[in-house]
Amino acid sequence: MPEISKRGVDMPASPIRKLTPFAEQAKKEGKKVYHLNIGQPDIETPEIMLNALKNIDFTIWAYTPSEGIASYREKLASYYNKLHYRITPTDILVTNGGSEALTIAMQSCLSPGDEIIIPEPFYANYNGFACAADAVVKPILSYIETGFALPPIAEFEKLITDKTRAIAICNPNNPTGYLYSREELESLKTLVLKYDLYLFADEAYREFCYDGNTFVSPMHLEGLDQHVVIIDTVSKRYSACGARIGCLITKNKALYQTALKFAQTRLSPSLEGQIAAEAAVDTPDSYFEAVSKEYTARRNTLVKGLNKIKGVFCPVPGGAFYVVAKLPIDNADKFCQWILEEFSYNNETVMMAPATGFYSTPNVGINQVRLAYVLKQEDLQKALICLAHALKEYPGRTQP
Amino acid sequence: MPEISKRGVDMPASPIRKLTPFAEQAKKEGKKVYHLNIGQPDIETPEIMLNALKNIDFTIWAYTPSEGIASYREKLASYYNKLHYRITPTDILVTNGGSEALTIAMQSCLSPGDEIIIPEPFYANYNGFACAADAVVKPILSYIETGFALPPIAEFEKLITDKTRAIAICNPNNPTGYLYSREELESLKTLVLKYDLYLFADEAYREFCYDGNTFVSPMHLEGLDQHVVIIDTVSKRYSACGARIGCLITKNKALYQTALKFAQTRLSPSLEGQIAAEAAVDTPDSYFEAVSKEYTARRNTLVKGLNKIKGVFCPVPGGAFYVVAKLPIDNADKFCQWILEEFSYNNETVMMAPATGFYSTPNVGINQVRLAYVLKQEDLQKALICLAHALKEYPGRTQP
Repeated sequence: MPEISKRGVDMPASPIRKLTPFAEQAKKEGKKVYHLNIGQPDIETPEIMLNALKNIDFTIWAYTPSEGIASYREKLASYYNKLHYRITPTDILVTNGGSEALTIAMQSCLSPGDEIIIPEPFYANYNGFACAADAVVKPILSYIETGFALPPIAEFEKLITDKTRAIAICNPNNPTGYLYSREELESLKTLVLKYDLYLFADEAYREFCYDGNTFVSPMHLEGLDQHVVIIDTVSKRYSACGARIGCLITKNKALYQTALKFAQTRLSPSLEGQIAAEAAVDTPDSYFEAVSKEYTARRNTLVKGLNKIKGVFCPVPGGAFYVVAKLPIDNADKFCQWILEEFSYNNETVMMAPATGFYSTPNVGINQVRLAYVLKQEDLQKALICLAHALKEYPGRTQP
Repeated sequence: MPEISKRGVDMPASPIRKLTPFAEQAKKEGKKVYHLNIGQPDIETPEIMLNALKNIDFTIWAYTPSEGIASYREKLASYYNKLHYRITPTDILVTNGGSEALTIAMQSCLSPGDEIIIPEPFYANYNGFACAADAVVKPILSYIETGFALPPIAEFEKLITDKTRAIAICNPNNPTGYLYSREELESLKTLVLKYDLYLFADEAYREFCYDGNTFVSPMHLEGLDQHVVIIDTVSKRYSACGARIGCLITKNKALYQTALKFAQTRLSPSLEGQIAAEAAVDTPDSYFEAVSKEYTARRNTLVKGLNKIKGVFCPVPGGAFYVVAKLPIDNADKFCQWILEEFSYNNETVMMAPATGFYSTPNVGINQVRLAYVLKQEDLQKALICLAHALKEYPGRTQP
């Protein structure tokens, strides 16, 4: 039998998926499982987007340009320019979801063995994208006590070697929900200019900022044109995860041309996905207002509910639809399996993502979980009751 | 300005795209350009597939499982088992087009520096997929004189080193249209078993076999379960290039699990693409019969027409919708640019793909072009007339 590639052996398996068989078994046993583990929103996709899909009128389902359909890139540029990104359509490369944008960014910017610094906890698939590019992730710890604020720049500098090529942030953050401030971004700017690094900003959750907080992008900062790579997707913005339409934005022309070569190899993003995504740009503000209101209420319910449970601590995040909470438990992997496998309350239980999957540093965050508030408030309330009872019963509880 | 990755610098640009500006300029000047350069068929997508797209009824455009929707994988397995592939749905990984299937296959099977042997001329993007995996393509020459038959196994053996991990074929072949025989596949089987190699078979053009030729897949051969990786796509089969739905098939469980890890990183293929592709499996045989009849007629028109032109030689291929022809010219890159830039006949001209882009070995195939018969016969006839006149006028003609 031929060998698997070294990269294939090293490729991390998705940490959350380890729990899937236990969730399936729980369902088979008749338990209701509240899924707080995933980033699949229950929010409906805008009608304007779904209608565009239903009304497609092509008779040949053809390739599009590798960089994306011209009219879609124009429309997208207008969306970003409303947000003061000061870009042109030629700065945009349309991709198969944000995932491909990240893959292409890593492939284009990092040679094998090169390093990318990422504040942790971070979205676990960053490990996979880096592995596919034979690059090395250097995690830098952020702390639940500060709400997962950006680590001090001095800590970043300690990690910089002659192999360091990029820093990546996710803003607002998955898994922590943290929203980076202008000051934090300015400090990253100083750093990337000093060491001539790329700054990747994954802005999948841009539209999800709460409490009147202003979203700041590295695209808003002066003097970073050659350094910034924005990663975006329609997945969360329009609750259209299954459309697989994202984009990479950079004003660095050499990088754009390199990324385009990778994009040309895979021919094109989907035609119908781009048609629908183009229509989605006209989604009325009222849609986002309603969604934002709903998520704010859910976040408040979840965070308040979590902090009411004895021994639980959860900071209030400024964006996205995730929180990371600290539980009075020995081990989140064990607990998240136990609550599916051994526990139920009123024949219900909760699926959560152990935060260990979001940390690269060993033995960090072992008592933390990520919860996605992608369920209705009523269900969140029930999940909270369930969790409170589970924490009382759990044999590995660490506090009286 | 930060550096581009080494891989990004090495990444080949698409060779055909170099001609695009000249084609655009020709159109601006009012010339009609017959596009024989591309693999985008003019055949309509089956109605059953387009209707499935128009009739989607989800309200949340959600992720699907990373390996693909269960019902689609079942339907696909039934399609393959009608062709006697003897597979189960769990052998199928649904991908973003055949391109992603090839990328994942290379990432999973080849470590950086590993080698893959591919008969040339070959589909130029194989270079890109290999580059993205930091793998090395070792080309092995096939010859227009033999209609691009499989090179002798002894020639393969000369190329095998301790870095060799895989052999890739495209069957029927892009760019040559060559259809591999059972004997050729059996000889490849002996080879891959002897050296414990993977055998990648890109079968994008499986449904396009002419003259009653039987299509043979490595999946039909006994004893190759651990070695064979099938690459497939709906792009050509259903003229649905823009749907970006393909798949990777392997009965090697370790490889499947590895490929799945790469697939999980990018979350999922598109939901609506899979829904439509699932419906497409029920495309009536009459569709393929009509398409096959049309392509056979086009192929005959094109090949006959080409061989009638003085100094031109074109073998009769058994499948796909491409031919590679030898022209009485000094340099196909120059000629293909010249015919767009400097030539017209009745204010018309032809765009072709210089075959040099399909060869890795330098200075091979420099008088060859690939022509795709993706136009109606009437247009093919006009393109042939145009080409015949161009070959008379071309200053770099090599024969009297």
